[in-house]
Amino acid sequence: MTDPLPVPPAPELLARARLLVAPTVGEPVVRELERITGRPAVRASEDAPDGPYIHVGASLPDALRGRHLVWFHSVNAGTDALLGSGTWPQDTLLTRTVGRMGERIAQYVLAWVLAECQSVPEFAAQHARAEWRRIPSELASGQQALVYGTGRIGSAVAGLLRGCGIRTVGVARSPRAVPPPGFDRVIGADEAGREAEALGAARWVVGALPLTDATAGHFGAARFAAVRGATFVNVGRGATVDMEALGAALRAGTVRRAVLDVLPEEPAAPDDSCWRLPRTVITSHSAGITADEDVVRDFETCWQDLRAGRVPALAVDVGRGY
Amino acid sequence: MTDPLPVPPAPELLARARLLVAPTVGEPVVRELERITGRPAVRASEDAPDGPYIHVGASLPDALRGRHLVWFHSVNAGTDALLGSGTWPQDTLLTRTVGRMGERIAQYVLAWVLAECQSVPEFAAQHARAEWRRIPSELASGQQALVYGTGRIGSAVAGLLRGCGIRTVGVARSPRAVPPPGFDRVIGADEAGREAEALGAARWVVGALPLTDATAGHFGAARFAAVRGATFVNVGRGATVDMEALGAALRAGTVRRAVLDVLPEEPAAPDDSCWRLPRTVITSHSAGITADEDVVRDFETCWQDLRAGRVPALAVDVGRGY
Repeated sequence: MTDPLPVPPAPELLARARLLVAPTVGEPVVRELERITGRPAVRASEDAPDGPYIHVGASLPDALRGRHLVWFHSVNAGTDALLGSGTWPQDTLLTRTVGRMGERIAQYVLAWVLAECQSVPEFAAQHARAEWRRIPSELASGQQALVYGTGRIGSAVAGLLRGCGIRTVGVARSPRAVPPPGFDRVIGADEAGREAEALGAARWVVGALPLTDATAGHFGAARFAAVRGATFVNVGRGATVDMEALGAALRAGTVRRAVLDVLPEEPAAPDDSCWRLPRTVITSHSAGITADEDVVRDFETCWQDLRAGRVPALAVDVGRGY
Repeated sequence: MTDPLPVPPAPELLARARLLVAPTVGEPVVRELERITGRPAVRASEDAPDGPYIHVGASLPDALRGRHLVWFHSVNAGTDALLGSGTWPQDTLLTRTVGRMGERIAQYVLAWVLAECQSVPEFAAQHARAEWRRIPSELASGQQALVYGTGRIGSAVAGLLRGCGIRTVGVARSPRAVPPPGFDRVIGADEAGREAEALGAARWVVGALPLTDATAGHFGAARFAAVRGATFVNVGRGATVDMEALGAALRAGTVRRAVLDVLPEEPAAPDDSCWRLPRTVITSHSAGITADEDVVRDFETCWQDLRAGRVPALAVDVGRGY
């Protein structure tokens, strides 16, 4: 919390800013953005006259850099690609769409946790063979989950896991006096001893980290070596995982299974080595999709904050990267 | 609640009753039962002298009928097979093991609900083909579940579903002024109009009914005809479902999918027609297994109740059948 958030654009700038929308944004969303802002939308691909501008999209076209862009609303939650594509223009407020992403990702994580406890893929395979055979189930209650990331998404994940009786421990960038919602307790990222202990005790290790310089390759050999039979679930960013180290840990058996919704490079080609990781399931970055209604709702919330002169809660701290 | 529960055996009978344990009960459990009751266990297969007796097991051997059996503790939760095997001896208290069955069954139901929302079997199959392809996920929040049975198990199921934002409606034998824990509202089994409406609105229909004369074939053509695209999950008893009617509803598409942990006849042979039901997964009566620790804990609770002269909460109303 050391980097101050950007100051919102002056109300008079916002009042006369043009609304530019990326060509990838669907027509129903554009109609809603026009309704909310009370002005016609211009497609960002068109040759637009000088600003001030509001832009809604996934990426920042070079043509808009240097123009008078006062506010960029990202249709995605992750802004690493956007911020990595060039220096972010000074004085441009960046907000993002989170939508019901916390809820969606939490249901994804719980689905795969319970699927493992209840042998869902194994029963589906048995059914296909017309085989009636008992497979013992595992009661999740009393197990421990270690969740990296204690923001909205980590909190939502922890809350659902705790509903099944799982003890939830968070790893936070900065220590917290009171655990965020969903967590039984929180460890600071600098408390290496406590973290290693928690990795050893965990049945589930969940990655819900944004990608920043500090988190690239975060899940590497040292962390995986402390794991004692946990399943690793990654719903953050693919590049937070050292895939070589994960592969070694899976082969050594310290990591029991892996469920990866994100990869360092997506989509994975059919010959990618990720498909050969033992006891792993890769899903297609589908845990936290944002729906059109999420974009509209979060844009509207930001718009109302800005009209009232407040920094939106969905504003991105460009220096920190999330 | 019209049939009075059996009266507990007189304390002096209990004090001198012999402890008979079925041969199927494992040695560690037997040691615990001896510790709890403070007397040596006799294996029920042995030729035992006259009673009074306590018996712990799954079934009532003919040799014990007519003897002075004062208390039978079932190692299972379902007592339909036990009660169906002959007239229950008058003055024999029947108690059962529920253990953490509610929790276990609730996690089973939630696992299969979320597995469908998150396409767990489909992603497992895609992974096996090294295929990275997006599959949209379904957010469970805001959907509706109709749960038949509002006792311990139905309540536990509803509670976990509600944790994922699912609205929970129960169907109870008798109407309730206040919904039991986990339920948003409860419909009485005699309110056919409201039940049909709820069947039509439900995304999930969960059977958690015991098997009694009143519930055999409960899920038949009439109920399935009122379903509009719900997935049917049965964790109660197999014979509460008319399998022909379920097959017709699946083929007609009114029932979207089926997940059956229980069947009218188990185990299902490889040529059983149940394997050919469309969009169905059959699991092997594994949702609510009772562990050894459950038997010991529930027996001990009953023992303490009886020593204090109370009717155990785990006593079975033999007339009603559960």
